[in-house]
Amino acid sequence: MNIKLAKRMSNIKASEIREILKITERPDVISFAGGLPAPETFPIDDIKRINQLVLQESGSRALQYTTTEGYAPLRKWIANRMNCRLGTQFDEDNIMLTNGSQQALDLSGKLLLDEGDIILCESPTYLAAITAFRAYGCQFIEIPTDDNGMLIDELEITLQTYDRIKAIYVIPDFQNPTGNTWNLERRQALASLASRYQIAVIEDNPYGELRFEGAFLPSVKSFDKEGYVICTGTFSKIFCPGYRIAWVAGDKELIRQFVIAKQGTDLQCNTLAQMEIAKYLECCDIDAHIEKIREIYRHRRNTMLDSIKRYFPTNIRFSQPEGGLFAWVELPTYIDSRQILTMCLKENVAFVPGAAFFPNGGGHNTLRLNFSNMSEENIIEGIKRIGHVIHAALK
Amino acid sequence: MNIKLAKRMSNIKASEIREILKITERPDVISFAGGLPAPETFPIDDIKRINQLVLQESGSRALQYTTTEGYAPLRKWIANRMNCRLGTQFDEDNIMLTNGSQQALDLSGKLLLDEGDIILCESPTYLAAITAFRAYGCQFIEIPTDDNGMLIDELEITLQTYDRIKAIYVIPDFQNPTGNTWNLERRQALASLASRYQIAVIEDNPYGELRFEGAFLPSVKSFDKEGYVICTGTFSKIFCPGYRIAWVAGDKELIRQFVIAKQGTDLQCNTLAQMEIAKYLECCDIDAHIEKIREIYRHRRNTMLDSIKRYFPTNIRFSQPEGGLFAWVELPTYIDSRQILTMCLKENVAFVPGAAFFPNGGGHNTLRLNFSNMSEENIIEGIKRIGHVIHAALK
Repeated sequence: MNIKLAKRMSNIKASEIREILKITERPDVISFAGGLPAPETFPIDDIKRINQLVLQESGSRALQYTTTEGYAPLRKWIANRMNCRLGTQFDEDNIMLTNGSQQALDLSGKLLLDEGDIILCESPTYLAAITAFRAYGCQFIEIPTDDNGMLIDELEITLQTYDRIKAIYVIPDFQNPTGNTWNLERRQALASLASRYQIAVIEDNPYGELRFEGAFLPSVKSFDKEGYVICTGTFSKIFCPGYRIAWVAGDKELIRQFVIAKQGTDLQCNTLAQMEIAKYLECCDIDAHIEKIREIYRHRRNTMLDSIKRYFPTNIRFSQPEGGLFAWVELPTYIDSRQILTMCLKENVAFVPGAAFFPNGGGHNTLRLNFSNMSEENIIEGIKRIGHVIHAALK
Repeated sequence: MNIKLAKRMSNIKASEIREILKITERPDVISFAGGLPAPETFPIDDIKRINQLVLQESGSRALQYTTTEGYAPLRKWIANRMNCRLGTQFDEDNIMLTNGSQQALDLSGKLLLDEGDIILCESPTYLAAITAFRAYGCQFIEIPTDDNGMLIDELEITLQTYDRIKAIYVIPDFQNPTGNTWNLERRQALASLASRYQIAVIEDNPYGELRFEGAFLPSVKSFDKEGYVICTGTFSKIFCPGYRIAWVAGDKELIRQFVIAKQGTDLQCNTLAQMEIAKYLECCDIDAHIEKIREIYRHRRNTMLDSIKRYFPTNIRFSQPEGGLFAWVELPTYIDSRQILTMCLKENVAFVPGAAFFPNGGGHNTLRLNFSNMSEENIIEGIKRIGHVIHAALK
């Protein structure tokens, strides 16, 4: 092939997770690698019923083109939900639907990033966000984090130091990959710094509804009086990922720009999917449904953390996620988790090596474990196998 | 809002068509503005049945994440269809599913275009392709066309003259906006020039299946021995646009790059939609379905061309589309079709002024008429009203 590709294509590469996922498609592999919801939670019977209702009542409309911003009743529901849960003050014009949260990230890059611009992120941060933003030729500066979020002093020093910072990307609730949650003070501080330095914040929130214990915290957005915070949310983790319905929310003028950007990208999301989700929310009890998901994941999280305590060496540090899908493990620094993975794959168990989550390198001794997609029995067995491999690698 | 946007956002603006479409949502407006399929062709009952089958047989899979390239049985069907219809030699690995053809265009830009690169296109060309490519900071050079496609001599001179040409964008079948179709010789010549100058061709083909008369022509791709031609196709016009399932096809190595680009953009298309279309193709007779669409559109095209002959001034030039959704009208050069539109909207009839289809300006005396979405009765009445307005504007 002699076609000359754009420079950006040398900046981005195939997602490591999606490549590992291909290996782990074999049914005998216990995989903690993906971020897949438990398929047994999908409300298949409700969806069957809802689909017939939507096609019966408004089939021609559900199969036709629609607006770029998306189906108004669904956007209204999302605005209300965010106002109740996250302390925002939105109406439907603050919301645009996206093809998964991933598109909200990609379009944020399209809106904000020129080549050479800087994006600040947690260290580590979500792998696919790195891919999305990197396509726009940006640089990343990783801000150190602890169990309560970004270190605000470090963030401020960085904001003072660099000229070309265009956005701060964060996942304050049950972060991917660490599972950690920002405390209230840091959320307030971030909103306040964004306003002082006039920098956009992308508050990515795919897991916020999946809290297993403790109180819901207000969003960073709820402290933003001037429109610097862009929020994302998704039905992938509380309903079904196959629908690819998520959203971006923010200042109305900014959402108008998102609409223009999305028009050029793919016109609109699947109309039928939008109307089915809206109908589901009207006819079914999503809170009861989410409670069921939380219950299952809470047990799996408990099983995973208990198994780590039991089967991993005692001096290994791991996170204590209060929700979400992931736990994070730090091995002794002389161990490379890619080598651990190679050995684990021989034992038919998989995870994602943590290095993938550090845009500027490092983290070779870390790994991410997903607990939502495997049975408790498999979690115990899989963690046991990984534990054996790590024990064997200890000096 | 004080957020500083990326430079590219000043290059792109809201789609003129989608803005006009908002005006024309009033049910009393006869609109030839959109490119909407006739909703009465949507196979709603089949889709109801198919949905239940897919959810019954493989609900967990249909609602879960899937691969970026898309559902293999659907990609296999597409490859076979293209091989039969368009003279290609594809298998499933030559195909990646996209969220509408629009995404295939956007990702082509992502793959190919650096800022300042040049893209060659027909004059006029598809409005939303201009928006998609322009976001990557490219320049357009319009190649003059006649009723049989691009003028190949002009194309070659341009290829010889400019350094930074990265792609040639064409719609050889029932072009949007003109409705014209490239003849065989020009298809061969384009493939040959692409190979000689090592330039990618984006062969956009959303309407090819909708031929009302005459023989199907082999694609430009069928003459491409070295992988320079990227093809797009879609289920939007032969099934339903609401599903947002389309595809990009080409050299396997290039499709691998498209997969990497799509991973960062939105991970994947709606899983359920992919599986439903595959099941529809397995259980229903899509050829009979397409024949039904062709029959309806053929009648509407005839009605529109007859009405233009009858109600428009005699010296006005208009295209004779052998398929697709659009006809193209050239008014005397002293008439601005935007002013005609303003007057027509008062008469509750709409179209798209042609200037929008010329990336570098011009075409103020042209307009695009869609014939797929209005009843024959409305077509007669609408063309009559536009005819009155044009007559009144004649000097």
